[in-house]
Amino acid sequence: MMCEVPLCDERFKKGWEKIKEIDQGILQDFYKSLLDISSEFARQLVQFPFGDVYSRPALDSRRREPAIVSAIAALGHAQPQLRLHLHAAIKVGCTRDELIEVLMMTAVYSGFPAALNAFATFGSVLKEVEAPCKESA
Amino acid sequence: MMCEVPLCDERFKKGWEKIKEIDQGILQDFYKSLLDISSEFARQLVQFPFGDVYSRPALDSRRREPAIVSAIAALGHAQPQLRLHLHAAIKVGCTRDELIEVLMMTAVYSGFPAALNAFATFGSVLKEVEAPCKESA
Amino acid sequence: MMCEVPLCDERFKKGWEKIKEIDQGILQDFYKSLLDISSEFARQLVQFPFGDVYSRPALDSRRREPAIVSAIAALGHAQPQLRLHLHAAIKVGCTRDELIEVLMMTAVYSGFPAALNAFATFGSVLKEVEAPCKESA
Amino acid sequence: MMCEVPLCDERFKKGWEKIKEIDQGILQDFYKSLLDISSEFARQLVQFPFGDVYSRPALDSRRREPAIVSAIAALGHAQPQLRLHLHAAIKVGCTRDELIEVLMMTAVYSGFPAALNAFATFGSVLKEVEAPCKESA
Amino acid sequence: MMCEVPLCDERFKKGWEKIKEIDQGILQDFYKSLLDISSEFARQLVQFPFGDVYSRPALDSRRREPAIVSAIAALGHAQPQLRLHLHAAIKVGCTRDELIEVLMMTAVYSGFPAALNAFATFGSVLKEVEAPCKESA
Amino acid sequence: MMCEVPLCDERFKKGWEKIKEIDQGILQDFYKSLLDISSEFARQLVQFPFGDVYSRPALDSRRREPAIVSAIAALGHAQPQLRLHLHAAIKVGCTRDELIEVLMMTAVYSGFPAALNAFATFGSVLKEVEAPCKESA
Repeated sequence: MMCEVPLCDERFKKGWEKIKEIDQGILQDFYKSLLDISSEFARQLVQFPFGDVYSRPALDSRRREPAIVSAIAALGHAQPQLRLHLHAAIKVGCTRDELIEVLMMTAVYSGFPAALNAFATFGSVLKEVEAPCKESA
Repeated sequence: MMCEVPLCDERFKKGWEKIKEIDQGILQDFYKSLLDISSEFARQLVQFPFGDVYSRPALDSRRREPAIVSAIAALGHAQPQLRLHLHAAIKVGCTRDELIEVLMMTAVYSGFPAALNAFATFGSVLKEVEAPCKESA
Repeated sequence: MMCEVPLCDERFKKGWEKIKEIDQGILQDFYKSLLDISSEFARQLVQFPFGDVYSRPALDSRRREPAIVSAIAALGHAQPQLRLHLHAAIKVGCTRDELIEVLMMTAVYSGFPAALNAFATFGSVLKEVEAPCKESA
Repeated sequence: MMCEVPLCDERFKKGWEKIKEIDQGILQDFYKSLLDISSEFARQLVQFPFGDVYSRPALDSRRREPAIVSAIAALGHAQPQLRLHLHAAIKVGCTRDELIEVLMMTAVYSGFPAALNAFATFGSVLKEVEAPCKESA
Repeated sequence: MMCEVPLCDERFKKGWEKIKEIDQGILQDFYKSLLDISSEFARQLVQFPFGDVYSRPALDSRRREPAIVSAIAALGHAQPQLRLHLHAAIKVGCTRDELIEVLMMTAVYSGFPAALNAFATFGSVLKEVEAPCKESA
Repeated sequence: MMCEVPLCDERFKKGWEKIKEIDQGILQDFYKSLLDISSEFARQLVQFPFGDVYSRPALDSRRREPAIVSAIAALGHAQPQLRLHLHAAIKVGCTRDELIEVLMMTAVYSGFPAALNAFATFGSVLKEVEAPCKESA
């Protein structure tokens, strides 16, 4: 996907590279929708979470995404972002079993409704991931 | 610490072993306080989170605790449990830098108040961890 | 509905009996969807909430469901589970007036948005409950 | 819109006048749906939030709605009510830029998932607001 | 305790009677503290939750308090109000075992941190309840 | 107060100026405590909320703080940050009556427990504000 953005900004550039590393298109859809409403908030979305925080070298995406998935599942009200980060976790190499372990813990600290809703989102993500394979079969 | 509990129960036994692996005494204090109020809930606390979920072999404590810390920090209302799992994370080998990375992400998905409160708890935990060393110095 | 599950497990068996007592099919749908994603979490869902907690004899379902509905409505982010327990409450004999009282209190401790969303879910449940009668008329 | 309600009740009357001042029809739809489920809660919805609180003269709607939008966006689980108050804010004269400022702050205290969901709702509201103009063109 | 309040107001009067029925002094302390900050909000606290909602005859306090305790425990951030309603529940005749059942369910829908914090508050309440007896012994 | 920080950074500089405008010392205490734990997160705290968001010119602090107070009170788990912004609101000229209006609305969308806790924090803040005057009297 092409992206016409102020790549001269260092924070934006780092954020966009992190997005390209982990995103399956969902965050880029959020970004494009935001451009019509507030291009400034769209920019901040790239700069702060992805440029300043998620791209810090002390933790690579392979180890970072399980912690992100865990927290967003615990929130209980953030299914679109959970879907984004479940796709990201799969893209950077988290296994299905590892993500199941992470989501199962949601029942412990956020309760079964949050865990059930997280597993429902995971079910949809698994179907989306497998869909192209089936199509090409 | 000694623990007079129904160790013949398989789930309790697994839970108690996990607790001994990760806990610095905080969960054991919760457990003892609960015994006076509801020994049944005390038993469930050992059996379900620690026996059924946290002791599953697919994820060892070293990789599990960062995801737990991440989620409990995101809740915003669970400082005693955050303190317990920050101590646990340190005990099983998570580094200070790794935990800082995890807590920093709280600002992204739960906002700065939750992140600030999590860092304040982390500050106390670091003092508790370093205190014995200083005493013995 | 038939259910091919490990009924030799005591906790699962108790959980499944409680589910048959209270559920109108919604929990059983959750359970079946989960089987494809994580049969272990599906089993935990039956064993812990329904086998260990909801089936304890100290409180029968008739008195337990109003407290469950009250708490799940208060969460504000658990409409699928609220729908499940509103159906369960009606099945075990809670009256419409009693459930209205319970949902009305949501406005007091969780605010009007949570209460409005709970009443909207209750409206759908009431239509689902009355639909078969109309069909047979 | 006509409204057959107990206008002799002073609190209801004040609440209904406030609703007519700010509402674009969404709250009135909530109210009508509630009438079939619990006319008492429908009445309380008009009397307490709108009659007792929002109509207090110390703060006019122009200054009140930004604070309401800010809090409801921060909740993260109240999109129908956020939509209602974004429309209300526009009706009483808040500018698009002012509402963007308010929603942008959501990222600071409630995190980016809540902020993203709030901006998505704001995007829909902006389309609804502009739709009639386009139709009449 | 004496209370110099506008008892001519019907809603306030009903609210105050309900408070006298269930409260062990905690709500009355909240009320008095509020008088110095906003006497209007103090009045609303008596009028809406206690006058309009909790005093409705369709559910007596003996059946209402377990649902209130259940929801407030589920919130996770309302320990002062949980303490108030645990005392109220005991005053109106709920047994210790019934309240344990209610709090135990918190682990199911809000997770173990919320449940542990609720049991800790219940532990303090039980000590407060038993303290006078010991003193008089 | 002196502050030895990288004032050459433009975002930090803007953030620090906003902090000096609104803060009564509480945020500066947060900042100093953070320096010992993670100087990077301390920097982000100044840069993102205060440098990027709160200092945007489209809304001055006089109009921004009521919306901040409203949202943080609605969260229910952020009393230290509520205290900080209640002091800030008073410093930038919000009146006591205006803040009471804002906090009173908390009961509508977050419920009475969150509102009561917010008013309790406001009570402490009012005492802190008035204390120096009394001392100098």
